[in-house]
Amino acid sequence: MKTINIGLIGFGNIGTGVVNALNANSATMASRIGSQIKLARIADVDTQRKRDCDYDPAILGNDANALIDDPSISIIIELVGGLEPARTFVEKALRAGKHVVSANKAMLATFGADLWKLAAEKNVALLFEASVGGGIPIIRALQLGLSANNIRRVYGILNGTCNYILTNMAEQKKSFEAVLAEAQAHGYAEPDPTYDIEGYDTAHKTAVLASLAFQQDIRFTDVYVEGISRLRQVDIEYARDLGYTIKLLGIAKADDTAGSGRVEVRVHPTLLPRESLLGNVNGVFNGIMVEGDLVGKSMFYGRGAGQLPTASAILSDVMSIAESISRGTPPAEHRLVVPPGKKSLKPIAELETSYYLRIPVADRPGVMARLSNALGERNVSINSMIQRGDHPTGRAEVIIVTHKTSEKDIQAALAEIGAMDVTQEKPFVLRVESEL
Amino acid sequence: MKTINIGLIGFGNIGTGVVNALNANSATMASRIGSQIKLARIADVDTQRKRDCDYDPAILGNDANALIDDPSISIIIELVGGLEPARTFVEKALRAGKHVVSANKAMLATFGADLWKLAAEKNVALLFEASVGGGIPIIRALQLGLSANNIRRVYGILNGTCNYILTNMAEQKKSFEAVLAEAQAHGYAEPDPTYDIEGYDTAHKTAVLASLAFQQDIRFTDVYVEGISRLRQVDIEYARDLGYTIKLLGIAKADDTAGSGRVEVRVHPTLLPRESLLGNVNGVFNGIMVEGDLVGKSMFYGRGAGQLPTASAILSDVMSIAESISRGTPPAEHRLVVPPGKKSLKPIAELETSYYLRIPVADRPGVMARLSNALGERNVSINSMIQRGDHPTGRAEVIIVTHKTSEKDIQAALAEIGAMDVTQEKPFVLRVESEL
Repeated sequence: MKTINIGLIGFGNIGTGVVNALNANSATMASRIGSQIKLARIADVDTQRKRDCDYDPAILGNDANALIDDPSISIIIELVGGLEPARTFVEKALRAGKHVVSANKAMLATFGADLWKLAAEKNVALLFEASVGGGIPIIRALQLGLSANNIRRVYGILNGTCNYILTNMAEQKKSFEAVLAEAQAHGYAEPDPTYDIEGYDTAHKTAVLASLAFQQDIRFTDVYVEGISRLRQVDIEYARDLGYTIKLLGIAKADDTAGSGRVEVRVHPTLLPRESLLGNVNGVFNGIMVEGDLVGKSMFYGRGAGQLPTASAILSDVMSIAESISRGTPPAEHRLVVPPGKKSLKPIAELETSYYLRIPVADRPGVMARLSNALGERNVSINSMIQRGDHPTGRAEVIIVTHKTSEKDIQAALAEIGAMDVTQEKPFVLRVESEL
Repeated sequence: MKTINIGLIGFGNIGTGVVNALNANSATMASRIGSQIKLARIADVDTQRKRDCDYDPAILGNDANALIDDPSISIIIELVGGLEPARTFVEKALRAGKHVVSANKAMLATFGADLWKLAAEKNVALLFEASVGGGIPIIRALQLGLSANNIRRVYGILNGTCNYILTNMAEQKKSFEAVLAEAQAHGYAEPDPTYDIEGYDTAHKTAVLASLAFQQDIRFTDVYVEGISRLRQVDIEYARDLGYTIKLLGIAKADDTAGSGRVEVRVHPTLLPRESLLGNVNGVFNGIMVEGDLVGKSMFYGRGAGQLPTASAILSDVMSIAESISRGTPPAEHRLVVPPGKKSLKPIAELETSYYLRIPVADRPGVMARLSNALGERNVSINSMIQRGDHPTGRAEVIIVTHKTSEKDIQAALAEIGAMDVTQEKPFVLRVESEL
């Protein structure tokens, strides 16, 4: 049986998972692809730290470039993460004619179209199943299983840390800060949680999904992003009372206007119907909906992070490339070409959806009429409303869910409401997706 | 751009969907695979019936063999359904060196391992994404995306007709017979619904999934099958009161005993926790769970039937084969080899799970003690119980959910209970899966 040597750059948490998964399943993998995958070299800046896996210390070094230059290695797994030096390593490997497997969503959301183009020019593969949804084979679903479709929408829960926090805020009725601290204690959130909780991780993944789904060069900077750190426990409670649950969603939609070719790409906490399937994706799990013109709605669910689920995705890419090496032809997982520079985006100001508003006001007569007028003047119509007074303080909160309206109109109405003397705090707004 | 000619055998409902999907999306497909798919010939016994799609009547004939013999055709789509003549057509096409795409789960659950072996010998593809889960790319998930895993379990809701009936029995509180009649009126159930409601369709699909997941030659006749026609509205209500929902599941599990290599394969109505994800797959939708040793639990959800969702799956197979023809190598979607004759099954009598029992009894003192004793003597312990008396008739129903026990013990206990003078009707039993 032929042996195919692979090299691993980045020997942290996920790298350790890849080594453990290879140790456990390389015989199974070999029986399925007809060639043996051998981890020939590992590079990491830290060669001393004890890793929780069995490996031959002689294959670990600190020089990624030497690994890339090693002619015996056909496939490089890039698990460095972040933009640099990851991008430089990947570019160098592709230029050297190596196949690359990467889990690096930040890199792909920033340089993806350029790197995919380079890989095509060099006739090598750059696969990235692990970059979105952890072990969920969502990239292959878009590239292969659903590739006869024109995709209309792709959206979902893409960050396990945020979903863990939101699930526990809802179930345990605790504050954002308290649940974040617990998540940090359990290792579900980083000591500096900014990347997750401010939505940047979700935005990276959404850019990758949107690029493939719409074959446009959609990058991180094209994504409208709001995180979950401003959510209060009361928002979760009000949402529940109104029949909703709140999830951080990455959303990419083709503009409904036929032939416009425009795509809206956004990340924000979103009210979803409580009985919806995505509304029932809880804890650290991810769920990704894809709507195609033939298939209709389909959903993909699973562990979006973790050593072994991520290794599952990485190794499926390694297997595809190993098969392609045996065949002498590129792997099939490159159907959706993303031409660099080609994009047509719908600005967030043109968004039309429903909105959830929480407006802290003085609890006195006439307030509701003034709020209603400000909304009505912008043609914002009210779907449902809750008013909760707190008599000792003389304050109240008015919660409104609107019918479908435009982002421009809602922002104009909120600016007016925010400037009223009866409004005691900046109104808080969330978007609602009832049709998801 | 190269043109690849395909032939369609079977021009019914799904065939019409394939033609409509090709008419709509062939340019998109061509842009993704670099070759043009052209429907060159159609064969059907009925050449006269009006079909709800645009096609050139000159390409429609009634001779499937002439289509198979046509040297200009590279790919045959088999949509005849059933065992014969479908199997003969497929075998003939494979022997003639044609690639075949089939949606025929009955054929694959009966002759699959033989046909896959023949295809491998002839170095052609036999792809079947549409045979299970309609538009859901579950076959590719097993063959490619999750192929680094040892699969532990695959189970799910595989028949839209049954799920529609069960969903409506629960939501509208109607009888099985009433909802079935509605489903027939809406076209969701056949005039003779036996194939769907008795679980045979689900068993065919479960055999296909189990064969791939465990790489064993598991056929329809290996599957333990119970349908939904004996379910009563009260079972749905009792299940709900106990925190469950009832779904028809196809279940394939590796035996937990390490190294046994045995697989249990069964289809039956199943009590699932109401808050579980599969418990929330409603209406005509399908949901399929896959548990692998690396990935953990993942789920795939979508429309399990219908013209366009099924066409989505069929055309994704056609695209894979078209690419492989351009490359001159077989498609990658054949990782999981199923050796004919290789199987190791765990008999249903060795099943261990929880059970739901509905026992119609005379409403008089001492009955509960006798039931409890009969169960206790077989080490069946009771998890929860409901007793509902109907005083005017002097009858009662006792509903019991057991802790985990063995099929053998529960059947022995039920035989004894069934023979008691206080038992007024044969006890009704359903299996419970709390861990799914």
